[in-house]
Amino acid sequence: MNVNLAGFGRDGLIFEEGETVAALMQMVEDRLDAITVSEVEVASDISTKLFAAGGKRIRPKLVILSALACGGRDYTRMVDLAAAAELIHTASLVHDDVIDETIERRGVATANARWGNKLSVLGGDFLLSKAFSLISGIGDPDILRVLSANAVRMSEAEMLQVMCEGNLKLWDANYWRIVEGKTASFMSACCECGAILAGANELTRSMLAGYGNQLGMAFQITDDLLDILGDPSVTGKAIGTDIINGKFTLPLLLAAKNENMANQCRKLLSESKDNGGLSPDGLETIVRLIVKSGAAEEARRTALDCARSACDRLSGIPSSSYTEALCDLAMSIASREY
Amino acid sequence: MNVNLAGFGRDGLIFEEGETVAALMQMVEDRLDAITVSEVEVASDISTKLFAAGGKRIRPKLVILSALACGGRDYTRMVDLAAAAELIHTASLVHDDVIDETIERRGVATANARWGNKLSVLGGDFLLSKAFSLISGIGDPDILRVLSANAVRMSEAEMLQVMCEGNLKLWDANYWRIVEGKTASFMSACCECGAILAGANELTRSMLAGYGNQLGMAFQITDDLLDILGDPSVTGKAIGTDIINGKFTLPLLLAAKNENMANQCRKLLSESKDNGGLSPDGLETIVRLIVKSGAAEEARRTALDCARSACDRLSGIPSSSYTEALCDLAMSIASREY
Repeated sequence: MNVNLAGFGRDGLIFEEGETVAALMQMVEDRLDAITVSEVEVASDISTKLFAAGGKRIRPKLVILSALACGGRDYTRMVDLAAAAELIHTASLVHDDVIDETIERRGVATANARWGNKLSVLGGDFLLSKAFSLISGIGDPDILRVLSANAVRMSEAEMLQVMCEGNLKLWDANYWRIVEGKTASFMSACCECGAILAGANELTRSMLAGYGNQLGMAFQITDDLLDILGDPSVTGKAIGTDIINGKFTLPLLLAAKNENMANQCRKLLSESKDNGGLSPDGLETIVRLIVKSGAAEEARRTALDCARSACDRLSGIPSSSYTEALCDLAMSIASREY
Repeated sequence: MNVNLAGFGRDGLIFEEGETVAALMQMVEDRLDAITVSEVEVASDISTKLFAAGGKRIRPKLVILSALACGGRDYTRMVDLAAAAELIHTASLVHDDVIDETIERRGVATANARWGNKLSVLGGDFLLSKAFSLISGIGDPDILRVLSANAVRMSEAEMLQVMCEGNLKLWDANYWRIVEGKTASFMSACCECGAILAGANELTRSMLAGYGNQLGMAFQITDDLLDILGDPSVTGKAIGTDIINGKFTLPLLLAAKNENMANQCRKLLSESKDNGGLSPDGLETIVRLIVKSGAAEEARRTALDCARSACDRLSGIPSSSYTEALCDLAMSIASREY
């Protein structure tokens, strides 16, 4: 398979050599703006504010790069699929914010803080339905199958996460299942669907799916780390938000492998339960325990291992600037600071 | 087009003559039970409780009868489509309950009262995603297009409804748009998709879509009436729930056409706003005004007109026990007591 780097697509679109990805990502932004316009003003408002707040746009990038890496040239459908992926992701963020009653995300007021729970739930439904509406236009039953199955998995993993809230033992037993369900499997689906769109064979599809899964793990573990070690002025999130909300992520779980650490953590967490929440001192102690135990370092290594493993999965795909960009993306995700 | 009443389908299923609909509706129940089983226990629990609570199952019945009326014989896909319709509807009910903070629906505790807002939002997402997963198996891009576009419309109409809450003037301007978006267009889509599945031509599809739209109007207006005149022990809902929640439905809007009535209603509603809610006396007065003004009677007539108009739309379709059942359904909906 030869990958032609010049961006001349089946749909007649022409891009300057090397500019294809940037041009397509800009088209995704335009598509997101256009598709979420509604005759019901508040629906447009919610969508506009959400997408104007920015975001890393990793999922649409995975779609685009995967499709290009497989020789895809149908830019219009690629952009639609990428936009659908971002819509599904944003819908889940909006519902997640309703759920956690978080006040901020991406440094700006969350939808529920701005519009209340009522409109946020409906706004999320609007975005999710718009995604399936876009997917219907793509007209590939395989893509619909993969994405809808993953939307199911995401909601299941989020429910499992709620059931584990505040319970160290349950988190320990279910951590990987939650991470896979809520993050990795959807990123994997984005890559696989990009490959499907490009007409890739089964083997290539499964390699890209594997890449996306490992990248998703790296992404989530790094997210976990940023909750503890991130710079709030860069991440836009206060330190320890996950722990305070009873989400016991990998660094904490690794620290708790040490019996002594586990006891100290458990004591602090159970005290916080009795006193209506973890105190700033209590949180600081837990973060210190995590760093001191080497758990933060181990989590960082695990994230990097996942990113490297993601790159390895690409070895069976003809090398191109797109496979390189996919590998770079995985590595940068594992060392990102926001 | 000949409609064969004996239930021998393309998929080899055989039913006794006249028993096809009942047999298929039972298969829909079984499908709903089977499809919502999840490895995440709480996801199965929420679904099981929701479907065990029963419901009128009007949307799946519309799918099945429409498909049969068009000569459809692919029972397996019919059942999947019918189950998907009920999943989309149930997802919207669950999110609606989160939104309205209602305590009861169908006489049993709502999902949000039982599991809290967190799991209810996710439970709704789970059901909606399962619906699209089922639709992906049906493999008809037209059906996906119609249903996803309608899921978008439903969320838009629900948002519009929230924006109109408590405002008589806004409700008056948007009532039909809300009813069409939140109820009628989805019932219309159920009928149209049943016809698509049966391979009906464009004309037949649009006739059934028109039938579903009129039936949906009849359904919603009757719902509005039951909020005022229904027997709580039969409907499972307290009198005036809509009005108390700021949903100003057709009977109230018709009563308010009379200047004097409008002033009295407005006065009561604005007093209630200042006093943290409508008193039982205030509600009783409003209901009395609605009945006295003849508005309740007029709403009832409008519902019956819609039902008759629904039946008229069926005249272009070869008459069969299924078209008769569709007409009976429309008429019974307009005079239902729950």
